[in-house]
Amino acid sequence: MSGMNQVLEIDETNLTARVQPGVVTGELHAQLEARGLFYPPDPASAESSTVGGNVAENAGGLRAVKYGVTRDYVLALETVLATGKVIHTGRATMKNVTGYDLTRLLVGSEGTLGIFTEITLKLIPLPPVVGAVLFLFETAEAAAETTVALGRAGLMPRACEFMDKASLDAVAAYTHASLGAEAGAVLLVEVDGSAAAVAGELEIAKEVGAANGAFEDRTASDAEARDELWSVRRSISPALSTLSPGRVNEDVCLPRSELARYLARTRELAEEAGVPVANFGHMGDGNLHVNVLVPAEADEAAMEGVERLVTNLLESAVAMGGTLSGEHGIGTTKQPYLGLEIPPAEMALMRAVKKVFDPAGILNPGKIFPDD
Amino acid sequence: MSGMNQVLEIDETNLTARVQPGVVTGELHAQLEARGLFYPPDPASAESSTVGGNVAENAGGLRAVKYGVTRDYVLALETVLATGKVIHTGRATMKNVTGYDLTRLLVGSEGTLGIFTEITLKLIPLPPVVGAVLFLFETAEAAAETTVALGRAGLMPRACEFMDKASLDAVAAYTHASLGAEAGAVLLVEVDGSAAAVAGELEIAKEVGAANGAFEDRTASDAEARDELWSVRRSISPALSTLSPGRVNEDVCLPRSELARYLARTRELAEEAGVPVANFGHMGDGNLHVNVLVPAEADEAAMEGVERLVTNLLESAVAMGGTLSGEHGIGTTKQPYLGLEIPPAEMALMRAVKKVFDPAGILNPGKIFPDD
Repeated sequence: MSGMNQVLEIDETNLTARVQPGVVTGELHAQLEARGLFYPPDPASAESSTVGGNVAENAGGLRAVKYGVTRDYVLALETVLATGKVIHTGRATMKNVTGYDLTRLLVGSEGTLGIFTEITLKLIPLPPVVGAVLFLFETAEAAAETTVALGRAGLMPRACEFMDKASLDAVAAYTHASLGAEAGAVLLVEVDGSAAAVAGELEIAKEVGAANGAFEDRTASDAEARDELWSVRRSISPALSTLSPGRVNEDVCLPRSELARYLARTRELAEEAGVPVANFGHMGDGNLHVNVLVPAEADEAAMEGVERLVTNLLESAVAMGGTLSGEHGIGTTKQPYLGLEIPPAEMALMRAVKKVFDPAGILNPGKIFPDD
Repeated sequence: MSGMNQVLEIDETNLTARVQPGVVTGELHAQLEARGLFYPPDPASAESSTVGGNVAENAGGLRAVKYGVTRDYVLALETVLATGKVIHTGRATMKNVTGYDLTRLLVGSEGTLGIFTEITLKLIPLPPVVGAVLFLFETAEAAAETTVALGRAGLMPRACEFMDKASLDAVAAYTHASLGAEAGAVLLVEVDGSAAAVAGELEIAKEVGAANGAFEDRTASDAEARDELWSVRRSISPALSTLSPGRVNEDVCLPRSELARYLARTRELAEEAGVPVANFGHMGDGNLHVNVLVPAEADEAAMEGVERLVTNLLESAVAMGGTLSGEHGIGTTKQPYLGLEIPPAEMALMRAVKKVFDPAGILNPGKIFPDD
């Protein structure tokens, strides 16, 4: 019991898994994939984050562009309420519409409505083949246009990951590797399915990339080559943390049509503030990680500038029809900004729902909602 | 304004649609498909039901087995509360985790929490090719075993529709057509994707069918031939209503592993009650429409027998890990049975959520919850 980290059941007939919340997501992936099963949600933190944490935050990740987010795979929950009472919501069935959907209300509630003790997940068959192509562009805007054009061409890539020049420079300095270092931006597109489907989709992707400004593409057809392409993407977080240990990692999500305009806006705002910004993220679903690279020597005045910059970045995202947070949640760091997106009447409803589940306010107190 | 039945915007760049609730789902499908876009939720009532109704009931339908249900495509809602106040929940972005997920709480709330005035839907690219195969079996159990085996073979059909002998007999009498009339059960499997993917998946499906007792299969590779296969499935509801104008159409959803056992149980219970039962439905996701064919001449005593049979059918589904309702919702007809599935503490939470949204109980009063 101590770590609540057991996979309780993998049901190959019903394509479901029953797990305790402490199971590390990457370990669940490995156990399932060995049996030809697939749990698509794939936060970049999968090797350290847990299924329980992923459900509490409604984690997204790399494969959401085709497969959706954690919410789309949670069938049922066992939850301890603030009273100590244990409730069971949802059913281990593919459809279920009896009463209100308390299960999906609990997903993403950040530990403020209850504590999960068992999670039933929907699985799908593991796609047999995966292929990837890395596109090199002169500009971030060309990468954004390619992302939109892939959708118009009818493609549903399973990942469509973006890195801008500042991110690529940080990775080059950190890894001493040169892949993509000559580009102004890169896009890593991954597709999956049957061998024939993957080959066909990679061809279409390459045509779309070339037509939208990719000056080079590198295709990976085996796992080793894919791993090499992904090494750049995987190095971003440690590279940026090395460059700026106090970096602020934002998590806006935009309509795809606004990506190019938003990226240009982040550069303008960064220049005005005199603080560098690096952009990377899940461009296929419009989810950008805007990293404000706070200088190590920042004094109080400089930190005020950083705070203004963060506010401006979030306000711009909301003004363009986007959201403050695509997948990280609110917690305490985005709490001061929640009102930028959630109007008073909607916030009042959320607070009232919180009171229903936790009248005394003892579950994860002080999270999500700004002080009254 | 009168019918609230306008498609307000189809956004081909962002793959979203903004619609009023009175739009007929089938009309939305047609408008989107003409542009190469796809809104997968496909209730059998698509030609008459509306998007607003589908969202209020979290409608499922024929294509849920691969593509999920209405909830999975609702990004944002404009809703009028009981107070008259208009709220906006969700964002027109692919990911969004700011605050509680009121949007998905409203989906499936059956008009008891608020009234939708605008709905923003997620779209995907239209799969270019669709293929279908109809399997004929001696027994319903063989169809259920084939359904499980398709999943084990790694297939994600976009539809996997079942009809038992009683359903086939009713269709034969109603349409005077003979397709499937010699079978004890049929399964209609539809796949989609690229031409190569469809061809490959149909081959695998036929191998799986043959290995699990299909004594015949009929493949349709063009729209006309598919339409002929579907004509049997489409005729079921009018055929059963002609046979039994007072039929009770249940909507249980089971773990796939329990389908064969549940089908056998329905026949036992029907025999005990002396009332015929016809089973059909979305077998791929375990969602069976169990139709109790109430005789036209049923007197009060006979109707008591029908009610006992319905109770037994629902209790058996819940006992096997299933749910009372996969896609139809509770309304008033399943209200007396809600307690079979939802325990008191969970029901109390739902009632408390209702009070938050509608303290005076003026929205769709008397629906879902049994009287206190």
